[in-house]
Amino acid sequence: MNVQPPISELDLRRATMCQLLHWLAVERVQPQALAETYLEAIERLNPQLNAYLGLSSTMLQEQALAAQHRRRDGVIGRLDGIPIALKDNFDVAGWPTSAGLAGRQKPVSDDAHVVSRLRASGAVLIGKTNMDEGALGAVTDNPHFGATHNPHRHGYTAGGSSGGAAAAVAAGLAVAAVGSDSLGSIRIPASYCGVYALKPTHGEISARGMVPAARRLDTVGLIARSADDLTVLLQVLAGYDADDARSRRRRVALSPPDWEPGRLRAGFLPDLRAVGVHQDVVDVFEAALAKWPRELGERRTVDFADWDFARTRRAGLLLMEAEMLGTFASDLATDDHVSEHFRRLLGYAAGKSAADYAAADRVLDAATLKMRRLFAQIDVLVLPTTPQGAFPLDAAVPDSQADLTSFASLAGCPAVNIPMGYLPDGMPIGLQLVGARGSDLRLLELASVCAATLDVEPAYPAIR
Amino acid sequence: MNVQPPISELDLRRATMCQLLHWLAVERVQPQALAETYLEAIERLNPQLNAYLGLSSTMLQEQALAAQHRRRDGVIGRLDGIPIALKDNFDVAGWPTSAGLAGRQKPVSDDAHVVSRLRASGAVLIGKTNMDEGALGAVTDNPHFGATHNPHRHGYTAGGSSGGAAAAVAAGLAVAAVGSDSLGSIRIPASYCGVYALKPTHGEISARGMVPAARRLDTVGLIARSADDLTVLLQVLAGYDADDARSRRRRVALSPPDWEPGRLRAGFLPDLRAVGVHQDVVDVFEAALAKWPRELGERRTVDFADWDFARTRRAGLLLMEAEMLGTFASDLATDDHVSEHFRRLLGYAAGKSAADYAAADRVLDAATLKMRRLFAQIDVLVLPTTPQGAFPLDAAVPDSQADLTSFASLAGCPAVNIPMGYLPDGMPIGLQLVGARGSDLRLLELASVCAATLDVEPAYPAIR
Repeated sequence: MNVQPPISELDLRRATMCQLLHWLAVERVQPQALAETYLEAIERLNPQLNAYLGLSSTMLQEQALAAQHRRRDGVIGRLDGIPIALKDNFDVAGWPTSAGLAGRQKPVSDDAHVVSRLRASGAVLIGKTNMDEGALGAVTDNPHFGATHNPHRHGYTAGGSSGGAAAAVAAGLAVAAVGSDSLGSIRIPASYCGVYALKPTHGEISARGMVPAARRLDTVGLIARSADDLTVLLQVLAGYDADDARSRRRRVALSPPDWEPGRLRAGFLPDLRAVGVHQDVVDVFEAALAKWPRELGERRTVDFADWDFARTRRAGLLLMEAEMLGTFASDLATDDHVSEHFRRLLGYAAGKSAADYAAADRVLDAATLKMRRLFAQIDVLVLPTTPQGAFPLDAAVPDSQADLTSFASLAGCPAVNIPMGYLPDGMPIGLQLVGARGSDLRLLELASVCAATLDVEPAYPAIR
Repeated sequence: MNVQPPISELDLRRATMCQLLHWLAVERVQPQALAETYLEAIERLNPQLNAYLGLSSTMLQEQALAAQHRRRDGVIGRLDGIPIALKDNFDVAGWPTSAGLAGRQKPVSDDAHVVSRLRASGAVLIGKTNMDEGALGAVTDNPHFGATHNPHRHGYTAGGSSGGAAAAVAAGLAVAAVGSDSLGSIRIPASYCGVYALKPTHGEISARGMVPAARRLDTVGLIARSADDLTVLLQVLAGYDADDARSRRRRVALSPPDWEPGRLRAGFLPDLRAVGVHQDVVDVFEAALAKWPRELGERRTVDFADWDFARTRRAGLLLMEAEMLGTFASDLATDDHVSEHFRRLLGYAAGKSAADYAAADRVLDAATLKMRRLFAQIDVLVLPTTPQGAFPLDAAVPDSQADLTSFASLAGCPAVNIPMGYLPDGMPIGLQLVGARGSDLRLLELASVCAATLDVEPAYPAIR
């Protein structure tokens, strides 16, 4: 007999995934009740937030019922009953995949690899979240589906391109979300919305069934409400997929999380202001570091003088735009599937030659070498995730949004976003830990330790 | 006291590297005498063959003397005293690197990674060998340096682009040679010249200091007079290089050579004629297979109906041409560094867009998946190396030269060429074993077993 009081709606929507898995295990909440709580909140809040593009309450309820039966019968998946959102560039059989474009209404026939993995783990798929058109952008102000609002302030960007996913997790409309990150698309909205995010080592989670942006950069990214939640999700989703050409066959598992924080060598950029980080963000960053006297071990200043942020960003964007000319060829041939803005962005690549592409691709080789040399000297690179916090949707979009995230993408390295505090305007801002390829679990353990020490007051959104 | 008779010049020039290492170890031959034998043969025969572009007898003699001192003093490298040739697209400090282009006379400052490895193993670098202009071609009829002739028949192509390297090994002017293979450039000349060759798994040998053709395809290839020689060379040269972005960090060594030939699953193309293999080559191939009743285990016909040889070849060539527009930009800006033919070939890529490059790069992803699926069903793919044997230098160049070699390149798989016999016109022809990534040592062991069973009469060249 369960004598404990029922858990409030807000607690169910603010709990971490690990907490919810515990409550499900001890039957303080049932999958159906949990799904209903999320469904009701989505119905109430999504008209304001516009985080979800598509959702089927019937399908959600059927999945929750099936999870409830499994829990009753004792055959329980790792994520059984956990409501999870998906960015709308992943295929779900029977649903269309918009990738942020209009008119793509044909249902697809197969689940993306991560969707199969989520289903096999018992997760309850809530629905598809809003994103920048074609995943090319970082504001989620979609010309066809409208803007996603930041849960912390209506009228502010949630970031992007996985803006709907980050907003849904931050607003308590999903326990976690799966998105994509090619130059920062999961970390930027996580920074702006005050949630945790992992961009894994390239190839660690299969991208099969994800609409490609640039295959050499594309990673499946994860958004959640704690570093430990990200670890559980990574363990469910990671692994070799013979049907994804970019999937990596590891001879051994990811490096085990065995860093001793006190013996770490942590790298820092010499001058954040010089690389365009706003003073407000620098202040929050330095205040966060002041709370970690021991957790980051020996601190080393790393040399980024040879790194041209604008050039590398441009190289990554060219790879994406050029591939999208192929990926979206039939959409581009219609009048109404893409906006003029998107057509103009891809038009930049249409004027570029094969030799330009090869030259951009070589920039990625240079980034790979740069990061390899860096991680021979340090274990982890610590910096803000974004040079700025969320800005009003009607403000000019800064060019620099992905400057601090893109180099991990170009080099295929894992990176974690941790909420590090609040800017003077009250909006959250994130800190990024970047590690060598394969160090994902070590980064997440460090993120967990750092977050516990940092003890940022939870970012309860204004829209709740 | 050494009572055994001296070894004849021809025997020294026809011996395998393993045999020579034995003779050096038991002092039946000294490094200086070995080097002199090769040097004299080169001086006599190279004017006819045109295999070497550059060579310094003083430098060769100095290296041989140093090897002799090391052997006397007992500190002996793995290849100590072995004369080895290098294709002229590898950097040797103090020498220019032509890459088959004219006017590139500036000496380079650093050794390529493989050159450092060879030096560290005590190998004696003979000199630089002829190649197709920019490594773009497979005939070694160089517009600036002239044609390399096939040692088996003057006036016939040696194949290419590593034609000088293969001709040097076949003619007994080098014990082994290091070349490059992006779509077949080491295997095609090995097939035409009757020598053994390995194109390793992509990234297994560092390509740092090699003039890039297309980094996703470029591999350092090896040419020698036996499969065992290739194994020794691979072990000297393979391994992670942090300074090459495409070098692979293996968590474990290459798969050990533990195939049981009788239990192998060997794959064969259903119809060699249908993919353009000449009937004469099919006849030699079938005669070779008839000698291997057990060595290849279970034989399976594999499906290549979905493989468009012309399209994949074209995709690989575009990657090479587009990158060369950057690599050779300053040469292209002069009047006299490149031929009109080469300019025209790169002009094809100059008319291609970044989206075309991305589409070609996706063909490589498709090839990777095709080969992964293939190597889930079979252990080794067995086919002729080239659809035809060497042809007269004044004949039309067939388009299909790289059709049977390019798919291993596109998928990053290792492939070995074994001489399998002679065509009716007396020219040698090779058989190719292709395996999954990382199976290099297994392929070489199988090649050794198969070559022993095949017992092809050694291909003593006409020009000796």
